Amino acid sequence: MQKSADNLFPSVRIVLIETSHPGNIGAAARAMKNMGLTRLVLVNPKDFPDDTAFRRAASAVDVVSSAIVVDTLDEAIEGCQLVLGTSARDRRIPWPMLEPRACGEKVVAEQAAGAEIAIIFGRESRGLKNEELQKCHFHINIPTGEAYSSLNLAMAVQVLCYEVLQASLAAQHEIRTPEIDAPAVDKREIDNWDMAYATSDAVEHLFQHLEETLVQVEFHDPENPRQLLTRLRRMFNRIRLDEMEVNILRGFLTSVNKLGRPQRGLKAKGTIPD
Amino acid sequence: MQKSADNLFPSVRIVLIETSHPGNIGAAARAMKNMGLTRLVLVNPKDFPDDTAFRRAASAVDVVSSAIVVDTLDEAIEGCQLVLGTSARDRRIPWPMLEPRACGEKVVAEQAAGAEIAIIFGRESRGLKNEELQKCHFHINIPTGEAYSSLNLAMAVQVLCYEVLQASLAAQHEIRTPEIDAPAVDKREIDNWDMAYATSDAVEHLFQHLEETLVQVEFHDPENPRQLLTRLRRMFNRIRLDEMEVNILRGFLTSVNKLGRPQRGLKAKGTIPD
Repeated sequence: MQKSADNLFPSVRIVLIETSHPGNIGAAARAMKNMGLTRLVLVNPKDFPDDTAFRRAASAVDVVSSAIVVDTLDEAIEGCQLVLGTSARDRRIPWPMLEPRACGEKVVAEQAAGAEIAIIFGRESRGLKNEELQKCHFHINIPTGEAYSSLNLAMAVQVLCYEVLQASLAAQHEIRTPEIDAPAVDKREIDNWDMAYATSDAVEHLFQHLEETLVQVEFHDPENPRQLLTRLRRMFNRIRLDEMEVNILRGFLTSVNKLGRPQRGLKAKGTIPD
Repeated sequence: MQKSADNLFPSVRIVLIETSHPGNIGAAARAMKNMGLTRLVLVNPKDFPDDTAFRRAASAVDVVSSAIVVDTLDEAIEGCQLVLGTSARDRRIPWPMLEPRACGEKVVAEQAAGAEIAIIFGRESRGLKNEELQKCHFHINIPTGEAYSSLNLAMAVQVLCYEVLQASLAAQHEIRTPEIDAPAVDKREIDNWDMAYATSDAVEHLFQHLEETLVQVEFHDPENPRQLLTRLRRMFNRIRLDEMEVNILRGFLTSVNKLGRPQRGLKAKGTIPD
């Protein structure tokens, strides 16, 4: 009988998007369980369930069996307050980056502070799409040699789960070296904050509201987007909005919505444009 | 054409003993090349060469092709001055142990000092035999969760090669002091960012513009401020706004300003309030 998985990381879900090879799902599940992680979410897997996934999982069949299958990334990260996405380094618009070690430390610290966390892995062939990466607070880049930078999907899961367990063991054993204590800004956010972080779905609704409002006031032209929304997403994801801030921003947008569409020249000419 | 492998670790050989599944050989080769290692030695592999090994190697076929096949561990580690063997923790006779991170640092330091190094991985089923472990200077144990401690062979290769590359990068960039490591997130943001950070006066003008607009749309009542502006200042100051972001936000506010004051009921009643 298989030993049921540890429950070291109940707030951490591993999200695999549109995985092509079921063997990678099984190998990822094994890598997770080896490192004490259990919550696997699959977004539109190509072949699943599949015998290969169970075979490659070896004694992590329970992780595969309890995997949650959903249709969209939004469903996969619903309720998450920290969203991390694996990515190659060279994106056009730079995003806040974490190396794997810092990723492990951040996941452990934020779970301790009560956050719900997702780590997202993209397709074997093409990784994460830009719109998926833009839902992330941080991008994680696994350093590689120059000659061959494309890790197998399950290997990438292994490396990050390894770093999560490493950070957890370090925290447990109180061998918190200066490096681990270092990120002062993050620490302040975690320890002292007066509001819970907003969930990814609340932030997504804010973005939609913002986009509608930008169109309404004719600042944003969907025909000529100029990376406007990408830059705003990046900006707000850097901030990591709390619940109160989301409420404030939505209240402001609602007040703007009440003004209606631009009525240029209204005051100057005393006429009502159509 | 495949890019030939880096030559970051010319003195380090990865030794796999009596590997049963050729897929693991290929996956191990890929993991090695991803991390800049190239020298693979196979002791009595069960099925090799084999198509599965080449397929799983993906773009690390060169590492598989140049693998050296030998009959004994002694041949595999001939000429080595540092021999490291992966092992579960509970051996009868305790041996000097290294954790993966310390293993990476040791390999890098000893290569720099001119040593020839082998890292040995045992059989999928039973790992290394006692007489093999006794040829090692150190045993390496990869920490795991308690429920499932047996890593896939290629995953173990991935974790140790990852730590070797990490240690090498840290040594190269001389970022090993806590002082320099400290503001990790911010520093990375600064280094990679595509826009200059906004000046404090530009941000202050943005705050003033924001406040005026909040009053204009009647979301903010200066008589009853409710910490609104404090929260917005704190929110934007959590990140360092760049110039483009300030321009976008001011452009949006200007578009809102053009809407004029709230004109409630305008559309519903068809009248112009004063």
